[in-house]
Amino acid sequence: MQLFKTLRDEAYEANMEIQKRNLAIYTWGNASAFDPDMGVFAIKPSGVEYEQLSPESMVIIDLEGKILEGDLKPSSDTKTHLVLYREFSGIRGIAHTHSPYAAAWAQAGKPVPVFGTTHADHCAQEIPCTDYMSAGAVNNDYELETGYLISETFRLDKIDPIHVNMVLVAGHGPFTWGQSAGAAVYHSIILEEICKIALYTVTLDPLAKSLPDHITKKHWDRKHGPDAYYGQD
Amino acid sequence: MQLFKTLRDEAYEANMEIQKRNLAIYTWGNASAFDPDMGVFAIKPSGVEYEQLSPESMVIIDLEGKILEGDLKPSSDTKTHLVLYREFSGIRGIAHTHSPYAAAWAQAGKPVPVFGTTHADHCAQEIPCTDYMSAGAVNNDYELETGYLISETFRLDKIDPIHVNMVLVAGHGPFTWGQSAGAAVYHSIILEEICKIALYTVTLDPLAKSLPDHITKKHWDRKHGPDAYYGQD
Amino acid sequence: MQLFKTLRDEAYEANMEIQKRNLAIYTWGNASAFDPDMGVFAIKPSGVEYEQLSPESMVIIDLEGKILEGDLKPSSDTKTHLVLYREFSGIRGIAHTHSPYAAAWAQAGKPVPVFGTTHADHCAQEIPCTDYMSAGAVNNDYELETGYLISETFRLDKIDPIHVNMVLVAGHGPFTWGQSAGAAVYHSIILEEICKIALYTVTLDPLAKSLPDHITKKHWDRKHGPDAYYGQD
Amino acid sequence: MQLFKTLRDEAYEANMEIQKRNLAIYTWGNASAFDPDMGVFAIKPSGVEYEQLSPESMVIIDLEGKILEGDLKPSSDTKTHLVLYREFSGIRGIAHTHSPYAAAWAQAGKPVPVFGTTHADHCAQEIPCTDYMSAGAVNNDYELETGYLISETFRLDKIDPIHVNMVLVAGHGPFTWGQSAGAAVYHSIILEEICKIALYTVTLDPLAKSLPDHITKKHWDRKHGPDAYYGQD
Repeated sequence: MQLFKTLRDEAYEANMEIQKRNLAIYTWGNASAFDPDMGVFAIKPSGVEYEQLSPESMVIIDLEGKILEGDLKPSSDTKTHLVLYREFSGIRGIAHTHSPYAAAWAQAGKPVPVFGTTHADHCAQEIPCTDYMSAGAVNNDYELETGYLISETFRLDKIDPIHVNMVLVAGHGPFTWGQSAGAAVYHSIILEEICKIALYTVTLDPLAKSLPDHITKKHWDRKHGPDAYYGQD
Repeated sequence: MQLFKTLRDEAYEANMEIQKRNLAIYTWGNASAFDPDMGVFAIKPSGVEYEQLSPESMVIIDLEGKILEGDLKPSSDTKTHLVLYREFSGIRGIAHTHSPYAAAWAQAGKPVPVFGTTHADHCAQEIPCTDYMSAGAVNNDYELETGYLISETFRLDKIDPIHVNMVLVAGHGPFTWGQSAGAAVYHSIILEEICKIALYTVTLDPLAKSLPDHITKKHWDRKHGPDAYYGQD
Repeated sequence: MQLFKTLRDEAYEANMEIQKRNLAIYTWGNASAFDPDMGVFAIKPSGVEYEQLSPESMVIIDLEGKILEGDLKPSSDTKTHLVLYREFSGIRGIAHTHSPYAAAWAQAGKPVPVFGTTHADHCAQEIPCTDYMSAGAVNNDYELETGYLISETFRLDKIDPIHVNMVLVAGHGPFTWGQSAGAAVYHSIILEEICKIALYTVTLDPLAKSLPDHITKKHWDRKHGPDAYYGQD
Repeated sequence: MQLFKTLRDEAYEANMEIQKRNLAIYTWGNASAFDPDMGVFAIKPSGVEYEQLSPESMVIIDLEGKILEGDLKPSSDTKTHLVLYREFSGIRGIAHTHSPYAAAWAQAGKPVPVFGTTHADHCAQEIPCTDYMSAGAVNNDYELETGYLISETFRLDKIDPIHVNMVLVAGHGPFTWGQSAGAAVYHSIILEEICKIALYTVTLDPLAKSLPDHITKKHWDRKHGPDAYYGQD
């Protein structure tokens, strides 16, 4: 148990943050923490309520999907996490929720336009939304294919998953990732806020315009560009 | 009192959960727990605020509507519960609320389409909505007829109440049921979340498409099908 | 102080309930309690935050508007309360808030149709909305005229203020009343819930139909009719 | 540290109020307090979470933008505050948030019409919304230009910043100000409530009318006019 203690703790804390921030009711969300050196990740067990979670209940999985430690079955979305860790080099945490505003955009099958600086501060382009998964893919290996649906969307649309750390899976909901499990959940919270304000925006104007590119770029750059000056770093 | 203690406790806990989860203000909701062997159910007394409830205040009723125990008048919706226990073989708990999003769909008189996996995880088809009750039925025995309105909707549309454990009564609000009073309330909570996300979805796109059947079926099956693999069972 | 102690206590509790139930932020609401035998009412002082209120800070006013007791200026809406106590015989409490959903219907200048039983349980007809007040009336005595605007709306439309204990003042917000200050605030809470569900309903269907009259009447009657059977009375 | 203690305390309390009132998540907001005699203001440090703030962490800046005291970098929006203190004579506090309803109106690029008295009580005309900032201005000095974008909007449209203490920056979000940092945050809270009710209003009626001028003027005057009679002063 000692070997994976840090990973378990990180995954546990991130999963609890999902509930604390009201991103999911019951068991409707999961987060995992990845260690690229060991090639393993810790993930929430399947269908266990947040109140009953502990660091010890996290399941340790390698990138082939083999369970290395854990008495419980891992999240049913485990293979989606696995594919994303394999395909999106450099990420160390993933989160999935059914937060209402993000789920609504996913159900509408619409990418979220960059309507304002709240969005541009965290993502300099629209939040992508995949297509519906084909029947063939669903029948093959649904959760594995969910991972490929996401990674193919990013590959085909030439989206860099390090810059765009969030996606809507059509008819399903959001997946987010980052440099840690906590960062992944942080991006889920931000995505929900962006989706909420964007829904209010189209309520006010169904034909609302996107933010001009020069403002989008500025807000992104001041937080994430080479000369970023936001924050204390 | 001892004979029905378990049933009273279960009904009491379920009623308190209605308030705790913000499904109802004041006295606008009720839940009951049914014991098919004894042929009796425990239900909330009428018009009593949640703060004043106790297991002892639950009223014990048989399937003919006779009060077996209890000093208070039972919920005015008692006959609706009674009909559903008689008509929907196998259920052991019922809940009714006026939760805002579900009530809005009921007021719009619209079934809730399967817009996404949040819905499909819990129900593999649209949430049915009854027609308005006729004047004749209202004037006959309103609460009894509400039960028949629901059961007839399921019979005519060939909906299995074990698979679809929720309904919207047009112009009124949701009823849900399950294997216990707690499960019934659990389904009320899920229904409210489904209705909320569905309302946001049609706000984003009034012509939003339903989830393709192959995804709906997959999500239902992985949680409830013969080869379900969600959760720890 | 002793003479009006009951009235002060009642008005104080009702005003605190406005804040507790999130019907108003800051000082945006007021409630009063009326004693028809003494012909006086106790009302919130003007512009004082809820945290600083006490039973002693309530102001005692007679039906001519004379301050009988109290060191503070009464609510700026005092004359509206005064007119309603004079015009609507039998009421003993009034509340006014800017609760968001009710204020939105008032700003849209629309009466709230009876879309469902949540509404019909408390009011068997649409919630009336006044016209905008004329410039002449505004310039005469605004708060007094607000009272007459309400009472004239009820008189002209033949609405019984004992049965319909709530109104929207166009472009302003809701006023409610009842058999006590607490009942008035209770009606404000119900009105906000009705307005919220009604707004969701027209979001789902801008042409949503009203509840058939036979269902409206039934729900009203089972709670308030001569043969009412809801509750324990 | 002693010289600026009052200013630090005031800025700290105002920043904490932003979080307490749910106007911002994470670090998405800032407030400052200005002393016109000393010609300096205290402002939140950049990118520091509210939990980690203290009066000591506030940064003291003069009107040339020089840091007089403070170990941390000031808010990235510091130059916007600076311009507004220079341009809007008489103000002593500024707040900026991304509160969802105000941000939505800013993202829709729409001024908020005076739909009702909730608005008129605090502002007797529509809440102005700037144009998008030009590419030239963005590339010059973004935060400084944000200040000028606001002050030019007020100058060109002949809006008095003492009477209208709030603005929406197109595609960005709200800025508010007042006689203290606390008053500025107070105006942010009111603005969010006005924007929420206004969004509900256009949901009910996309063509909702503005309040007649005679009612707008009356509500403004009774709170802020020469013969104001609202409150205890």
